[in-house]
Amino acid sequence: MPSFSAARPSPSIPDLESRTVPEDHDDLRLWLRMLTCCNLIENEIRSRLRTEYETTLPRFDLMAQLLRVPGGMKMSELSRHMMVTNGNITGITDQLEKEGLVERVKVATDRRSSLIRLTAKGKRSFRKMAQSHEQWVRSLFGGLSEKSRDQLFEALGELKLLTQPRIAGRSGLSR
Amino acid sequence: MPSFSAARPSPSIPDLESRTVPEDHDDLRLWLRMLTCCNLIENEIRSRLRTEYETTLPRFDLMAQLLRVPGGMKMSELSRHMMVTNGNITGITDQLEKEGLVERVKVATDRRSSLIRLTAKGKRSFRKMAQSHEQWVRSLFGGLSEKSRDQLFEALGELKLLTQPRIAGRSGLSR
Repeated sequence: MPSFSAARPSPSIPDLESRTVPEDHDDLRLWLRMLTCCNLIENEIRSRLRTEYETTLPRFDLMAQLLRVPGGMKMSELSRHMMVTNGNITGITDQLEKEGLVERVKVATDRRSSLIRLTAKGKRSFRKMAQSHEQWVRSLFGGLSEKSRDQLFEALGELKLLTQPRIAGRSGLSR
Repeated sequence: MPSFSAARPSPSIPDLESRTVPEDHDDLRLWLRMLTCCNLIENEIRSRLRTEYETTLPRFDLMAQLLRVPGGMKMSELSRHMMVTNGNITGITDQLEKEGLVERVKVATDRRSSLIRLTAKGKRSFRKMAQSHEQWVRSLFGGLSEKSRDQLFEALGELKLLTQPRIAGRSGLSR
């Protein structure tokens, strides 16, 4: 493992990684460092969504899902694809519907269920937020060297390929 | 950026990264890939804590904090150091106290506040869980090549150093 000195945080900023002791396994340090980075960035995005768009990550997440499927999605599909948070999908959908950002459409072949889809207003609203979201992410990752960015992308790809099927397989999830 | 083919998930496993379209910036793909990995691993740890120890990540997180400070911590300090989740710290502490895993100790110099610390039983219980936790993490990262592991550790260290002071500075947080 590489030396720790290069990435040691300043003493005034304790984080998850700073909990580790010398006996801890390198993989544990690696995981806590990764979790610290994710938490930092996710919290920043939550905070920006709140202050700049008066919205939340689960709302943003739900609209992002819907944009990908113009025909609409069933509530059950939506739940399955929400990975950021386990928000109250029905509650969020109701609220977005009230605000005219999504609509419920009846399914001709199945009278009991309906599809949720973005309205034109919802699409416009989401695209604006998504543009800002991309800017925030670019600015957060901006100072990273090209080499580190590439290495991170490659190594995370390897980690995802390794963990995804094992976790999905064992928990019986299809995603 | 490196080719995407090496780390493309199988079609049956949609994830956050699969939401991206070709026009999206590389940094956005990188962030969604990182978030996917974090979510996969964190969900797996939550699930294992639940099934093997009938406990939750906020409980584990709180006890991990306390183990580092044998003298005990004030409730306000504890809240500040909980980074994984914003659980109900008071509620969790009350429950752990009922189970004999933590205790409240009066502070001689300040009658209004008390310190929370692990009991001997709490320490034993946490050490057992922490051992399992380390095993789970090792097994999840186990298949990763030594090179990828090193690159991930270095690049995340760089990312943490870059984002931590900027985010902490702007939000007025000291952590």
